[in-house]
Amino acid sequence: MDIRSEMTINEMIQEFTKSGCFGAGRLATAVDIYQKMLDEKATIILGLAGAMIPAGFRKIIVTLIQKKLVDIIVSTGANMVHDALEAFGGAHYKGTWLIDDKSLHKNKVERIYDIFIPEKLFIKKFDNPILEVYQEIASQFKGQVLSIKDFIWEVSKRIKDETSILYNAYKYQFPIFVPAIQDSCYGLQAWEFQHRTKNALVVDAFKDMEDFIALVANSKKVGAILIGGGVPKNFIFQAAFKTKRAYDYAIQITMDRPEPGGLSGATLEEAVSWGKVHEEASRVTVYSDATICFPIIVAAVMERLKIK
Amino acid sequence: MDIRSEMTINEMIQEFTKSGCFGAGRLATAVDIYQKMLDEKATIILGLAGAMIPAGFRKIIVTLIQKKLVDIIVSTGANMVHDALEAFGGAHYKGTWLIDDKSLHKNKVERIYDIFIPEKLFIKKFDNPILEVYQEIASQFKGQVLSIKDFIWEVSKRIKDETSILYNAYKYQFPIFVPAIQDSCYGLQAWEFQHRTKNALVVDAFKDMEDFIALVANSKKVGAILIGGGVPKNFIFQAAFKTKRAYDYAIQITMDRPEPGGLSGATLEEAVSWGKVHEEASRVTVYSDATICFPIIVAAVMERLKIK
Amino acid sequence: MDIRSEMTINEMIQEFTKSGCFGAGRLATAVDIYQKMLDEKATIILGLAGAMIPAGFRKIIVTLIQKKLVDIIVSTGANMVHDALEAFGGAHYKGTWLIDDKSLHKNKVERIYDIFIPEKLFIKKFDNPILEVYQEIASQFKGQVLSIKDFIWEVSKRIKDETSILYNAYKYQFPIFVPAIQDSCYGLQAWEFQHRTKNALVVDAFKDMEDFIALVANSKKVGAILIGGGVPKNFIFQAAFKTKRAYDYAIQITMDRPEPGGLSGATLEEAVSWGKVHEEASRVTVYSDATICFPIIVAAVMERLKIK
Amino acid sequence: MDIRSEMTINEMIQEFTKSGCFGAGRLATAVDIYQKMLDEKATIILGLAGAMIPAGFRKIIVTLIQKKLVDIIVSTGANMVHDALEAFGGAHYKGTWLIDDKSLHKNKVERIYDIFIPEKLFIKKFDNPILEVYQEIASQFKGQVLSIKDFIWEVSKRIKDETSILYNAYKYQFPIFVPAIQDSCYGLQAWEFQHRTKNALVVDAFKDMEDFIALVANSKKVGAILIGGGVPKNFIFQAAFKTKRAYDYAIQITMDRPEPGGLSGATLEEAVSWGKVHEEASRVTVYSDATICFPIIVAAVMERLKIK
Repeated sequence: MDIRSEMTINEMIQEFTKSGCFGAGRLATAVDIYQKMLDEKATIILGLAGAMIPAGFRKIIVTLIQKKLVDIIVSTGANMVHDALEAFGGAHYKGTWLIDDKSLHKNKVERIYDIFIPEKLFIKKFDNPILEVYQEIASQFKGQVLSIKDFIWEVSKRIKDETSILYNAYKYQFPIFVPAIQDSCYGLQAWEFQHRTKNALVVDAFKDMEDFIALVANSKKVGAILIGGGVPKNFIFQAAFKTKRAYDYAIQITMDRPEPGGLSGATLEEAVSWGKVHEEASRVTVYSDATICFPIIVAAVMERLKIK
Repeated sequence: MDIRSEMTINEMIQEFTKSGCFGAGRLATAVDIYQKMLDEKATIILGLAGAMIPAGFRKIIVTLIQKKLVDIIVSTGANMVHDALEAFGGAHYKGTWLIDDKSLHKNKVERIYDIFIPEKLFIKKFDNPILEVYQEIASQFKGQVLSIKDFIWEVSKRIKDETSILYNAYKYQFPIFVPAIQDSCYGLQAWEFQHRTKNALVVDAFKDMEDFIALVANSKKVGAILIGGGVPKNFIFQAAFKTKRAYDYAIQITMDRPEPGGLSGATLEEAVSWGKVHEEASRVTVYSDATICFPIIVAAVMERLKIK
Repeated sequence: MDIRSEMTINEMIQEFTKSGCFGAGRLATAVDIYQKMLDEKATIILGLAGAMIPAGFRKIIVTLIQKKLVDIIVSTGANMVHDALEAFGGAHYKGTWLIDDKSLHKNKVERIYDIFIPEKLFIKKFDNPILEVYQEIASQFKGQVLSIKDFIWEVSKRIKDETSILYNAYKYQFPIFVPAIQDSCYGLQAWEFQHRTKNALVVDAFKDMEDFIALVANSKKVGAILIGGGVPKNFIFQAAFKTKRAYDYAIQITMDRPEPGGLSGATLEEAVSWGKVHEEASRVTVYSDATICFPIIVAAVMERLKIK
Repeated sequence: MDIRSEMTINEMIQEFTKSGCFGAGRLATAVDIYQKMLDEKATIILGLAGAMIPAGFRKIIVTLIQKKLVDIIVSTGANMVHDALEAFGGAHYKGTWLIDDKSLHKNKVERIYDIFIPEKLFIKKFDNPILEVYQEIASQFKGQVLSIKDFIWEVSKRIKDETSILYNAYKYQFPIFVPAIQDSCYGLQAWEFQHRTKNALVVDAFKDMEDFIALVANSKKVGAILIGGGVPKNFIFQAAFKTKRAYDYAIQITMDRPEPGGLSGATLEEAVSWGKVHEEASRVTVYSDATICFPIIVAAVMERLKIK
């Protein structure tokens, strides 16, 4: 490995290929696999767990949608809540994690590690505007059963902020799945909405699979890029049982470990036993912080493919 | 800390109180908090993430239900899938994690760390019988919208195995929530069922909150015991915004860490800032393996309270 | 796995054998291996890294020496510093890790996670008395070259506290190796002593290997129990190249992980490739907190062997 | 955070400053602190634990020495063994960690995660040539007592490979401390040498402190950059008690965590309580893989300071 002044991200990654399968070597392999996915025109599914939007990933995700560097996103509810919060005029503030949470609570400031959000702002810029959106959706669909994906679509349609992930998803007709949407402020406010207005807003927990399978089934090749584990990872992989195709490529960025047995930390090799990942799939797990590694992977691939 | 031959679990825990807030000290604090929850007749909610049923927790969870040591369970879908798999006559086999997953796949054996399940068994003892259960539920409810909790209830009602968690939940009228049920084989088979039979089976993603709030709102005190993070942790904590009560006690057993910013690893102090956990709540995080720590906590509390 | 009131540690471990190689299963395997070491009269070497004495392990280690449950200890310097600190009348206080370290520093209180030690106490009950011990050793040996093990021996000889590890090591003629002694307050005070008195105190960095090999070479079987990694783990394992015997048993308790490539997190399988651990060795790594797991392992083995 | 094609490392780091104190934000802070150390002409001490040379850091470390980007290195023995191994004509081969270690052992190949070294090569290119070096040193010093630093110096002097860290240390009169040298193949071969030749080779375990203090005591400012923990971290920090100066800057890159209480995972805040790190010090811990983060930090600083 060598380094020098003014080297580009991809030049650094080229040096990293000289390392072992320690972090740097794995990161370089991830770039190779992502490039291969794009070269071979695979359907690329991005799994998004962890506080990635509060961490600052919003613009990167928008770039991925606009430049067609991924084809489908499967996200936790929270990440799409924080996108909407910013879209409705809210913000995330850089604070510190070395703080007395009791005093934060007394001052009504909510903390995500070292990111601060005033409770008032959250109410004003998410809780309230989303209720208005729900009112519109309820009026339009009148108790008709929606899938979660369609529901997110209806939310996206009503977002006006051009820097938003949801806005761009709608604009570029890009599918976003949020399989556990109830487990987020979308769910809380859906309850609030029904509780207050007695209006129906029926979102079917099971319907998404139909759409997901339709998107994947006819692809030549399928690749997964997993940031963190959780529901997005499981949802993406479990679909393999019904799409009847194991993933041809898989990149996993995680700090979780396999020994406790949970799915988030499970190896991609384990996924081979289930037929989720193909026996011959190009695959790598990067055991490092995704806020560092994912931007590097994307920037390196953009450089290689000369995507401006 | 002292140890000696034939000491009981609780005697060991008494020694652990002499340690710092290293693992042993935290574990002893967890026992104290759990005892306090029971002494003060709190509503106790158990969050169950990670592969706890494959790891062997089935009987312990049944004991908790039967002895009224917890009041509500919030689980991942997978844990309730593996309970049903055993209830329908399936099994989990002890294998090894040092194995070539390609050969496992060729032999159609599925791996969870070092637990093996033959694919055939999974199909015969879960995929197929659950479709029959779904047929019965669909016939009974004819397109009526169910909450996830009610849906799980209908499944539980049809389980005949007395060693099953679901069976005992029904028998003891014990509420189990599975907020992300779609992200499990229940979800996959629901799709399969609808796909094959064109029968409706409408499970509302948002409806559970109503029931959860009803169960918690009138409690004198509320406590959370979190095994792992994921959706169960978030679902339990986010309810605090709508139940209008912060948790009075919280025990978290996790190997995740706070620095990457994800909710699974977030500290209980961070939860104080959001008003999820009460400023003065008794709370502790045990950073150790839940398969070791949780049985110890339960056994020590049973010993203290002389529960046979 | 089942649990019940008043079960003993070993009864719990018997239940843990029913778990997978998740934490609980591995812990049960560790107990089996330790029992086997004792049954087969192996020379048992305990590696002691991490802040185990501040965490409260002092009495347990003394029990191991007195009951002949281990034969050799290889420790970090710090653990033997904290034993001597207590032996000279010092103490470790339980504080909290949620504290402003600047205010601790202003109040001259030193912190090890949540253990507090007033600086004054450290000076009075370790820094000063150890200088007197060094004076006696220097007078006795007059510039003669000592091995680290002999040096620790001379310190042990002068400890009067019957609850001390060092005291009991001397009393029971029990060998303690501290391969990186310079990297501890013993080293700092050795420099202080030489700086102040201009007296020679020559401790050879390389000499210990001779003694270590002599102790191990003629054993029928050799086992290692590693609490944490660091120098103790490496020192114990590297000796295999010169003792010409791979370890027949190995138990490792660690929170470190293999992927970053460091020795502390390296698997016992990797050690097989080097010939440090025997191809057919009984071996297990427990990925959990040692302050919880090690007392359990010892108590379970004492119960099995009916050691009072 | 934004990313684009052909951005340089430092341009990416500028984007990372927009993230929270999740990995990316911490990494950006580390670059700022390192730049500040250089701007303010601090004495910069690099702590080197973990398998960094096998991982491919050799050239980067040489660059740091040549460009005067650090002033002192404190390393584990193993890293300097692997530097010498390459200097004597040996090599590290990229293999895989998914391998049967028994078969590796039968084929006499030694594994460090996924790096392979044939045992024969190790013997031929380290064990044997270092014995010749020891012979020369023993002849020159005839039983005179050396400090570890002087001993390493004598080894460095005899290295002929211009790509070697040790070679460049000698060439640039750059001090390298290896406080636990006995815990490495230098130690094993020192024993071998004495055992075979009965020649004296006396290396004092305690003497290094004198030199270390002399190097640090008169500095205007002092900064520490810690890759991993272990003996290098402790040695660097414990010196603060005797140099009478707390570190003015500290960067720590580690995957270890604070809760188990060990020094490797201890926070830099904890070090403030001991007076090791200054209350007002610029400091940051990056919880991520050092093989990724350290090259990035160095490249970004070189870019900022226009070092070619």
